[in-house]
Amino acid sequence: MLFLIGLGLGDVKDVTVKGLEAIKNAKRVYLEAYTSILTVGKDALEQYYGREIILADRDLVEQGSDEIFEGARTEDIAFLVVGDPFGATTHTDLVLRAKQEGIEYKVIHNASIMNAIGCCGLQLYNYGETISIVFWTDTWKPDSYYDKIASNRSRGLHTLCLLDIKMKEQSVENLIKGRKIFEPPRFLTVPQAASQLLEIPDRRKERGDDYTAYTEDTICIGVARVGSDTQRIVSGTLRELTSVDLGDPLHSLVIAGHMHPVELEMLKQFAVTPSIFDALLAESR
Amino acid sequence: MLFLIGLGLGDVKDVTVKGLEAIKNAKRVYLEAYTSILTVGKDALEQYYGREIILADRDLVEQGSDEIFEGARTEDIAFLVVGDPFGATTHTDLVLRAKQEGIEYKVIHNASIMNAIGCCGLQLYNYGETISIVFWTDTWKPDSYYDKIASNRSRGLHTLCLLDIKMKEQSVENLIKGRKIFEPPRFLTVPQAASQLLEIPDRRKERGDDYTAYTEDTICIGVARVGSDTQRIVSGTLRELTSVDLGDPLHSLVIAGHMHPVELEMLKQFAVTPSIFDALLAESR
Repeated sequence: MLFLIGLGLGDVKDVTVKGLEAIKNAKRVYLEAYTSILTVGKDALEQYYGREIILADRDLVEQGSDEIFEGARTEDIAFLVVGDPFGATTHTDLVLRAKQEGIEYKVIHNASIMNAIGCCGLQLYNYGETISIVFWTDTWKPDSYYDKIASNRSRGLHTLCLLDIKMKEQSVENLIKGRKIFEPPRFLTVPQAASQLLEIPDRRKERGDDYTAYTEDTICIGVARVGSDTQRIVSGTLRELTSVDLGDPLHSLVIAGHMHPVELEMLKQFAVTPSIFDALLAESR
Repeated sequence: MLFLIGLGLGDVKDVTVKGLEAIKNAKRVYLEAYTSILTVGKDALEQYYGREIILADRDLVEQGSDEIFEGARTEDIAFLVVGDPFGATTHTDLVLRAKQEGIEYKVIHNASIMNAIGCCGLQLYNYGETISIVFWTDTWKPDSYYDKIASNRSRGLHTLCLLDIKMKEQSVENLIKGRKIFEPPRFLTVPQAASQLLEIPDRRKERGDDYTAYTEDTICIGVARVGSDTQRIVSGTLRELTSVDLGDPLHSLVIAGHMHPVELEMLKQFAVTPSIFDALLAESR
């Protein structure tokens, strides 16, 4: 049996009791290590579980599943995923390959940013499509998600923005020379993402777009290390979020749509400038 | 400190290690008992935690928070919620009232249907706005969510439909006479919701709507008791789902939007009629 086990978002103790039991009973334990991270590393997990952990990078998961699946018809293999196991397409793909090999699987769910983002105070059923914001380079500045934000906001919906993670990047030189040397991990931060977002409306206007999805005054929320003891939540205008320091990864960003009074009250708790939310609350009543 | 603790979706062992520790250390333990249910009841939780549990119905949570908050400035109170604590507005409201009383709070996240629905194979970032489908009566058949489904599907997005729960309903007679006698709990099932959905396009056409959000051939997915050992997932046309029996509650329904091949492959595993998905896969390639 292949167990796909969500670890939640914070630290070692965010695993469920069911998940912990499955980890302790498994023949081998893999940790998917390229779509997300906890606030603690492999060593802390190994110590807490009392089990050796094999790090599974993209190559192993996408091309080395024979190794992961070895013996899984008769023994239990644990595949750990930060958040919930179905947060990324790559895990659905792993399940499909397991099924093809005649291996049964079981999922042990956990919190992921897709539902834990509720902590910022905006109601989950008021969110539209989730988007991903990637690191811009000097020559590559994709902004197709701008249309999705516009579509969400035109319906009054909030937009959760997942921020880019680069876990095992190669420099162009190392890539060309085929050297398996990797750059240190990089994580897009809330101020970086906010700065990129702030550039898009003008770029789009120059290209002839006749609508504006948001402005520098649009209310946004930055969150960091959700579920951990060092969790941070900050609400303010998009402009304000370009200069907040939320510390270590992971960060996520929300672009608010229409806000109900209860949502505004909650956001006010995390405000850079509370008076902005007092004004919005006065308007909404 | 007020601890809001998500219990996840299945049974007693879906609580996180962090959540379980907080429950064991709390002075009093409340279980919110009107927005969702686990596959096990209060007795099983009490036995597993080794703690007495106080059931918190809507009246207690919305009007009796003084009782819940008693002593919370100096002692720890645990407030348990099925799924994740921020699944319903009522919990955000509770947090705001705690803050007003000068009580600190901490959230221990867990899986909820909002992210665990990933188990059906449709990718979470391809979902649009979530809707709620309520029980229809002979005289009250609300269908405003039809426009939201249409809006999601016009953008190729999937729609998660949360199905109605009636936990402490009073009959009209008992309500009028002020008798606190409650009907047995009722849970909208997948076939009931599918039957209601199937009626709406014709009703809307009669009222002059010029668009169709879906037809009886639209692919839908029914799920039941997600995360438990008796979990069921069934995929098929909306028509097919009007006659599947998924057993005990809770049920949820998904109306698919545009489906990628990996999504179709996954849905095929749960199909009433696999050949329908073979045909869709052939088209998509």
